Amino acid sequence: MYHHILLAADFSDHGREVSEKAKMLAEQFQAKLSAVHIVDNLPISDASYGPIIPFEAELSEELFNLGKEQLSQLGKALDIPEDRQWIDVGSPKLEIVSIAEEKKVDIIVIGSHGRHGFARLLGSTAYDVMRHAQCDVLAVRLNDT
Amino acid sequence: MYHHILLAADFSDHGREVSEKAKMLAEQFQAKLSAVHIVDNLPISDASYGPIIPFEAELSEELFNLGKEQLSQLGKALDIPEDRQWIDVGSPKLEIVSIAEEKKVDIIVIGSHGRHGFARLLGSTAYDVMRHAQCDVLAVRLNDT
Repeated sequence: MYHHILLAADFSDHGREVSEKAKMLAEQFQAKLSAVHIVDNLPISDASYGPIIPFEAELSEELFNLGKEQLSQLGKALDIPEDRQWIDVGSPKLEIVSIAEEKKVDIIVIGSHGRHGFARLLGSTAYDVMRHAQCDVLAVRLNDT
Repeated sequence: MYHHILLAADFSDHGREVSEKAKMLAEQFQAKLSAVHIVDNLPISDASYGPIIPFEAELSEELFNLGKEQLSQLGKALDIPEDRQWIDVGSPKLEIVSIAEEKKVDIIVIGSHGRHGFARLLGSTAYDVMRHAQCDVLAVRLNDT
């Protein structure tokens, strides 16, 4: 049913639950497990002063390095080899969908926030991914409040 | 991981693929499989003449009976006993989410349309369900055009 599973890793408090489900699914289907983490490239700006570009570039690099470290630890915990750990900077929904297509995964496993979550107000990456993905999507409910 | 799986059955051309995945998932996890079908209560109206109520009521009943028959056939094909086949009239997204909560299912399996589908323009039940469900949602990609 599934041969290649892609975990969309976000390293939030509830991310561990999503990772564990992806891992269990991979074991259940004896499928290959990969992980992707996208560092959001939201421009950081202050309305009063306009975009603060140098700060943003520096912060993005820091976030990228932090993400890489976290992804590497996750890879160790889930037995995902380095060549199936992918990280990029960009729009999470677009990059996740694009990597899923490029790597020909069968299913994306991603966390989705509850109806009261803060993320709910901002819109959810999970359902943007569902909307655009060419493969199945498993949205793991995160019980935030 | 999953003990009770709910198939949101829509009997479209591609519905069979969704059903088969739900069935395989249930077998893989040795989980209980249930099915729900919601007959959409969209009011049928003609802008020139206003809502045509008697016609609508009659049609709804016909659609309900047809849905019941299709659900029963699906139940036979997937070995779902009658007491785990649920049908109702209403808003699909609301009813699916509400039945999932009431019956304490762990995951809803539902078809989701591609980015070029007609359903894409209308919005997709799948991602409304994902947005509101208190459990995991597996969106099975339907490759419509």
